Amino acid sequence: MTRTNSAAGRLTLADARRLRADRARQVADVLRRQVLDGRFEGGALPAEADLVREFGTSRNTVREALDLLRAEGLVERCPGVGTLAVAAKYPHGLERLLGLAETLREHGEVENEVRTTGLITPSTEISDRLRTPPREPVVYIERIRRLNGLPLSLDLTYIARDLGEPLLGEDLARNDIFVLLERIAGQRLGLAEVTLEAVNADPHSAATLDAPRGAALLMLERLTHLADGRPVDLEFIRFRGDRIAMSGTLRRPLP
Amino acid sequence: MTRTNSAAGRLTLADARRLRADRARQVADVLRRQVLDGRFEGGALPAEADLVREFGTSRNTVREALDLLRAEGLVERCPGVGTLAVAAKYPHGLERLLGLAETLREHGEVENEVRTTGLITPSTEISDRLRTPPREPVVYIERIRRLNGLPLSLDLTYIARDLGEPLLGEDLARNDIFVLLERIAGQRLGLAEVTLEAVNADPHSAATLDAPRGAALLMLERLTHLADGRPVDLEFIRFRGDRIAMSGTLRRPLP
Repeated sequence: MTRTNSAAGRLTLADARRLRADRARQVADVLRRQVLDGRFEGGALPAEADLVREFGTSRNTVREALDLLRAEGLVERCPGVGTLAVAAKYPHGLERLLGLAETLREHGEVENEVRTTGLITPSTEISDRLRTPPREPVVYIERIRRLNGLPLSLDLTYIARDLGEPLLGEDLARNDIFVLLERIAGQRLGLAEVTLEAVNADPHSAATLDAPRGAALLMLERLTHLADGRPVDLEFIRFRGDRIAMSGTLRRPLP
Repeated sequence: MTRTNSAAGRLTLADARRLRADRARQVADVLRRQVLDGRFEGGALPAEADLVREFGTSRNTVREALDLLRAEGLVERCPGVGTLAVAAKYPHGLERLLGLAETLREHGEVENEVRTTGLITPSTEISDRLRTPPREPVVYIERIRRLNGLPLSLDLTYIARDLGEPLLGEDLARNDIFVLLERIAGQRLGLAEVTLEAVNADPHSAATLDAPRGAALLMLERLTHLADGRPVDLEFIRFRGDRIAMSGTLRRPLP
């Protein structure tokens, strides 16, 4: 069927293992998407025999694929019942600039545990990006954000003082900073420059997010500007990788 | 300075540790960006004493921040020399649909190790997304993609048969599939739907990418359409989290 680039003809035991692992990954990738999209009615995956037929592969490969998903915390195998989807990732758009509560409105209520607030003397990097004079204090806010009680992200936020100080009198536990900022500034937000990375959680961040040590985090750095172009809100956001998927549409540029 | 939400007044040893860890994370986030942007001349970070001054924090906190970056593999501490940036993440746009070689052209040469190619009988999910008749074979291609010899990603690609079969006669080691597909189809690509997640590498994927077991991967699922709207190329891409950062611009929608 497929041609692999190992030495033609003889297949060693190591080759066979590699091939099965490769094939299990293919199966797991397809099932992962279906699990995350909530495509299995009642959360139960098809029986192993059905997956064997569906993917045209061996039972061992199917089991290995299910093991991969179990290691990611997406499914549980229940003896006598089968394999159940136990996780869902919440969708987060990559196209429109929205606060978390705005984004996840249909999925439940976002609550913010405000861990720290106050004025700090920022480093040069922060001042430069917010275009504030060197060492002029800025407002710092640190929040754990939960959806329906589960930790989604840890957000470190730096805000220019004139907008940040009024913000501290607002209800930060129940509102997106974006929405509050627009009210205080009397104008809409405009653009945000974002950078997305995958990082392993350090022990302290993992504990803060109730995640295993080393858990894959989706790290978002975001500098948000007011509609008039002024940068006002610099955030470093660690999303739990097992709870958020970002999606959007890319367009092929003209040649 | 900042107000934290631990019991007011008395600071226990655990509180103090938590505060230092919180502060170290703030410092590390700023330094991480500077390291990844190649902002330190010659790769050397400022001396600890300078960082203490710059961030207005203690030497222990600075050391803890540098330890966080070291654990991520971004810096090395060299006795007698100081702290050196040892990693750079390559930028990958989130706005324009480009192949990897197109994207990283100015950073070096992308080489693809083709691990597997051939016709497979796809699962229903794959057929549905490529809008091909059930069980009609599609072309499968598996590649490890390297930039300047270092593994960047592992790509699993499913392509509709009429375009995929001609592709197998092309030089897949040195060309982006996007570029080849456009030549074969006689039209440009159009849109792609993408989903980005952070996942921990399973042992086999980690080994394939020369990454530590459990390493954070940026996982991209991408369904690419021709300009005429037909979906032709479904890819599951695992990027090494320590080698790629995705960036783009988001725009605030109208109210």
